[in-house]
Amino acid sequence: MKTEKEKMLAGEMYNPADPLLLKEREEARRKVRIYNQTLETEGEKRAKLLKELLGSTGENFYMEPNIRFDYGYNTHVGENFFANFDCTILDVCEVRFGDNCMLAPGVQIYTATHPLNPTERNSGKEYAKPITIGNNVWIGGSAIINPGVTVGNNAVIASGAVVTKDVPDNVVVGGNPARIIKQIEL
Amino acid sequence: MKTEKEKMLAGEMYNPADPLLLKEREEARRKVRIYNQTLETEGEKRAKLLKELLGSTGENFYMEPNIRFDYGYNTHVGENFFANFDCTILDVCEVRFGDNCMLAPGVQIYTATHPLNPTERNSGKEYAKPITIGNNVWIGGSAIINPGVTVGNNAVIASGAVVTKDVPDNVVVGGNPARIIKQIEL
Amino acid sequence: MKTEKEKMLAGEMYNPADPLLLKEREEARRKVRIYNQTLETEGEKRAKLLKELLGSTGENFYMEPNIRFDYGYNTHVGENFFANFDCTILDVCEVRFGDNCMLAPGVQIYTATHPLNPTERNSGKEYAKPITIGNNVWIGGSAIINPGVTVGNNAVIASGAVVTKDVPDNVVVGGNPARIIKQIEL
Repeated sequence: MKTEKEKMLAGEMYNPADPLLLKEREEARRKVRIYNQTLETEGEKRAKLLKELLGSTGENFYMEPNIRFDYGYNTHVGENFFANFDCTILDVCEVRFGDNCMLAPGVQIYTATHPLNPTERNSGKEYAKPITIGNNVWIGGSAIINPGVTVGNNAVIASGAVVTKDVPDNVVVGGNPARIIKQIEL
Repeated sequence: MKTEKEKMLAGEMYNPADPLLLKEREEARRKVRIYNQTLETEGEKRAKLLKELLGSTGENFYMEPNIRFDYGYNTHVGENFFANFDCTILDVCEVRFGDNCMLAPGVQIYTATHPLNPTERNSGKEYAKPITIGNNVWIGGSAIINPGVTVGNNAVIASGAVVTKDVPDNVVVGGNPARIIKQIEL
Repeated sequence: MKTEKEKMLAGEMYNPADPLLLKEREEARRKVRIYNQTLETEGEKRAKLLKELLGSTGENFYMEPNIRFDYGYNTHVGENFFANFDCTILDVCEVRFGDNCMLAPGVQIYTATHPLNPTERNSGKEYAKPITIGNNVWIGGSAIINPGVTVGNNAVIASGAVVTKDVPDNVVVGGNPARIIKQIEL
């Protein structure tokens, strides 16, 4: 029989009030709070804290405070990861970034979702879908990546885009919902 | 003759620089600041502070910091209210949530508005329209609810939606401006 | 030969890892952090700090914390400037507001951009385009102004609008991408 955490990670309905998950979210909030209280001169401390918070990182990575995460350990960032101010990553399921990804301010990455049926939703049970971001992806300011989305290599997400479907390689998407607006010449 | 506060609450043009209103907003900002400085382990303190800030609550309610409010006392939340990180509620007029409402991160609830005519707007006078959210409503991440909107029971607001008109019961709305994208089966 | 800062201000490709620019951004982050830590009762201190941070201001200006800036000195605000909670201004190039401008919460002003070609983008070099906002402009909550945009006098930007093109005088724009939705009668 699966634990609530195992169900959560598998993308199945799970109970977020499970004691282990409550404890892990509290621990992530503690780490996030300490990170957000660091000074602009404390680059090494920030790198150390972020490495402790995230599932995995490359050698070179940076996030401007304030950051927000649900667990942290479900987020994996590749080499040369950069996130500007105030990015939120609800990493209930795995969030995986390739190399050379850049997030503008206020980017929202949401793996978390709920049942549409109100009775099911009010049960408190919920689920999540993993998000995968390719290599060399630039996500514009305040863009939203919805649960289950895969973004291809070299893609550019326009500022304010709401990405509800997979994005192929080498395109610019924008709008709400996001649609392909340009092919990128390599 | 009405006070500025009475005009404000009635949805009429009012002067936000009125001394009583300035004092009340300062008091709300103080409470909000203290709330946002609480630790992730201080659940009881958070509940107490939020109960003091809001107009009314049920037994079970929670908001993840950072919260933002204009007055706080104009916001009424029903039973089982949950708001994730960084929700902003400009409660110049009444904001009323039914039971079992869930707000994802970054939700924006705006009762406040201004005249379109620049001369009128530059007078500094402004007005607001109440917002009513039904029972069992789920508002997705970074969605915006505009002044005067009523959202029906069991409605789901997609992430990034900009809700400019009333939303009927039992539908999913999304987009900018938000339109009905799905009927919900009960 | 131009310095990296000169290239940046001229809207040319520049290296943001230039030592002078790193130092200037660190200094801006320090000022921004101190501003965001002020109390709601410290209006005079906030005015003084903001005057030190920004390129120029009128007599009457105010921003609710949390503010975010890249440099601060590239942002020029006219008389009677007001910004509500949590506005972000990436002022890599000049951002110029006329008189009587009002920003609702969460407004995003982005001069910063990157090459679409991933190889060029991964070089770390980037560029920016100035943003100009006319007189008597009201920018609605969580609206985004993209690099290079000019907004005309008396314009109103609807909440959640993503402004990708110039906005003429005396119109309301809304949507993603923003389009003219109303002419304003003067």
